[in-house]
Amino acid sequence: MNRLLADLRIVEFSAFVAAPLGGMTMAQFGAEVIRIDPIGGAIDYNRWPVTDAGASLYWAGLNKAKRSVALALDKPEGRELARAIAAASGPGGGPGGGPGGGIVLTNLPPLPGFDYASLKAVRDDIILLRLIGNRDGTAAVDYTVNAASGFPLVTGASGTAGSAPVNHVLPAWDIAAGLYLATALLAAERHRSRTGQGQEVVAALSDVMLAMVGHLGYVGDVHINGRARPAIGNDLYGSFGRDFVCADGHRVMIIALTPRQWRALGRATGLADKLAMAGAMMEADLETEAGRFEARDAIAALLARWCAGRTLPEIGAAFKGTGVLWGPFQDFVGLVRDDPRCSPANPLFAEVEQPGIGRYPMPGLPLDFGAAPRQPTRPAPRLGEHTDEVLAQVLGLPAAEIGRLHDLGIAAGPEGR
Amino acid sequence: MNRLLADLRIVEFSAFVAAPLGGMTMAQFGAEVIRIDPIGGAIDYNRWPVTDAGASLYWAGLNKAKRSVALALDKPEGRELARAIAAASGPGGGPGGGPGGGIVLTNLPPLPGFDYASLKAVRDDIILLRLIGNRDGTAAVDYTVNAASGFPLVTGASGTAGSAPVNHVLPAWDIAAGLYLATALLAAERHRSRTGQGQEVVAALSDVMLAMVGHLGYVGDVHINGRARPAIGNDLYGSFGRDFVCADGHRVMIIALTPRQWRALGRATGLADKLAMAGAMMEADLETEAGRFEARDAIAALLARWCAGRTLPEIGAAFKGTGVLWGPFQDFVGLVRDDPRCSPANPLFAEVEQPGIGRYPMPGLPLDFGAAPRQPTRPAPRLGEHTDEVLAQVLGLPAAEIGRLHDLGIAAGPEGR
Repeated sequence: MNRLLADLRIVEFSAFVAAPLGGMTMAQFGAEVIRIDPIGGAIDYNRWPVTDAGASLYWAGLNKAKRSVALALDKPEGRELARAIAAASGPGGGPGGGPGGGIVLTNLPPLPGFDYASLKAVRDDIILLRLIGNRDGTAAVDYTVNAASGFPLVTGASGTAGSAPVNHVLPAWDIAAGLYLATALLAAERHRSRTGQGQEVVAALSDVMLAMVGHLGYVGDVHINGRARPAIGNDLYGSFGRDFVCADGHRVMIIALTPRQWRALGRATGLADKLAMAGAMMEADLETEAGRFEARDAIAALLARWCAGRTLPEIGAAFKGTGVLWGPFQDFVGLVRDDPRCSPANPLFAEVEQPGIGRYPMPGLPLDFGAAPRQPTRPAPRLGEHTDEVLAQVLGLPAAEIGRLHDLGIAAGPEGR
Repeated sequence: MNRLLADLRIVEFSAFVAAPLGGMTMAQFGAEVIRIDPIGGAIDYNRWPVTDAGASLYWAGLNKAKRSVALALDKPEGRELARAIAAASGPGGGPGGGPGGGIVLTNLPPLPGFDYASLKAVRDDIILLRLIGNRDGTAAVDYTVNAASGFPLVTGASGTAGSAPVNHVLPAWDIAAGLYLATALLAAERHRSRTGQGQEVVAALSDVMLAMVGHLGYVGDVHINGRARPAIGNDLYGSFGRDFVCADGHRVMIIALTPRQWRALGRATGLADKLAMAGAMMEADLETEAGRFEARDAIAALLARWCAGRTLPEIGAAFKGTGVLWGPFQDFVGLVRDDPRCSPANPLFAEVEQPGIGRYPMPGLPLDFGAAPRQPTRPAPRLGEHTDEVLAQVLGLPAAEIGRLHDLGIAAGPEGR
């Protein structure tokens, strides 16, 4: 976390990954991000992984450092309060508040009164960022977008045309969409701070996928070449890289993208002469990526035998300081327990007490700003933790009125009351 | 593309995916992005997919709308020119240029004179954004970072402990890093426009991965629960979703995240009664995500038989307008040839003539800004296409001096001269 965006307030109506990640990224930049949920929580409030008591580690992970407000969004009075928070002046900036409010981020279907025209009627310069599924308004989520992307049919075991698709487990399209929303938010806020003009920004999750398939050259490949890249397992397309089994059962990824990495690999393994024979045998110029790709099975035959005769620590020792590009595979348990990068030894992480869950290392922003020092990582709120505070501070409601809203079931605090 | 950032100039020293994507995102927002490459191109200049003539569709895809300058970066005079371009005043803003220059984006090891202190000596308010591999300076790329992430060991076929890792094919960590860089760039530029202060921003690719593993709850899962999610193939973790084979051999992904989607699935398939029996049989409350996850094999048994008896068009007709969350799998060829979303029928795409390659649909920014209309998508430059233009316009060099630089092999145009 840092304080670069401390003058902004973002009001988030969200669920799952993309918009929560976009909002959390802003919170990690110091913005005041208020996630407004229905009383009892949104549909992602209990998402797995969960603790044995049912608390969602997923929700906690994607909502760190936000303020949580719980309102009866199914009632006009609850929605009216939410609209007022969305339109309020921003944090700081003197008695009347600063200009950095009026930014709404959502990946949910708009509630009545939360379309752009209605919000603009409440605050003329409002910025509304909406993530939708498909551009035509039909639903799409990471799983359906990924199915359409072409990637599941080139992921996993090679050489099996017509074989089963393999979905990625990382919600990569949601992540890209969330980070596009963060970029879009800053571009729109920059425009507003210069012109006074707000706007609606709409992104379709399927467009995020389509743009990336195009950027990576796969749309052009079909149009220009009339073909598509094959499924080649864990091999790198157009270069050399593959996974290998070590003597102790561990697995490693070994890669040679550049001529320097290629020569380092030959030197570190002592296989330079035999690798040259593999190139001659396959009539491939192994100084080029295309040559290494073409001769990859012959190269891999040598490296497989070399790895099979060595444990992971022996391979690590052989490659250390050589310029070989490689890395071991590890599972989530190994990553968390054995990899010092995934611990408070890395300034990215801090031990944080998460209410209702416990103490564990949480990541901050994976960006170090020279002019904006890291601030302590903050946990996710309890649901409704900041309802009263926000109603008082942002809307200026007196305590009696806040009490009335609780009595009527319009507002709720952390225990759902 | 739009014109929201037309007053910014970003100078990029890059290769592969992350920094080129971050820079291209800025170019698609209208910024002047100058990619400076060594004469002959950087290590990604010929990356696959390529045309039969060897032109890289990948390079074209990740460098659209940039200006390309080719300089002898291995010579002091070439580096001096590059530094001067990096430090120059920004586009527009009157005779002396605007304040929006002095932004450098890179994912390459710094050339001599391109560390932050040296750049700051040339322009005090310079912003330098650097993507590195690991925080300790050691190398890491998407493939090694992914191997360490835990995801390859829960991707693909289920129930096979100790089975082979499955790498994602989408360079998801590079994509996330590129979009983080875009966000960071705007946050740093916002800070500079308010305080006059530049800064260095450093992101490690492995930190991007680690942050995301943490955000999604997997670090907490190991710390708090002492366990990690298992490999469950294409099943959704903690909810219902799986791929199914249709009568015509096509495959579909069917998902029920919300109670509404679950009930829609029962109605649209006519299986509501049998699905209730599956719930009773498995003693699971199918109105909850956890219940559907627990009973997933019984649910899938019913859906598998239902899908196997129907072709993809029949399934599409049965689900249309019902609220069922589903989607067909398609390969890259199917995506490009049969999916209208991946064509100029979608405003995301425009037919663009890419020099040296041909005409094909290229994606713009997957974001629609109400106050910033879409501009025509622009192709990638030829390598060195803008060398002379930039030397003349940005540095104000006279034609004779530019000619001298060509003669000396310090600067090169599109044909490498």
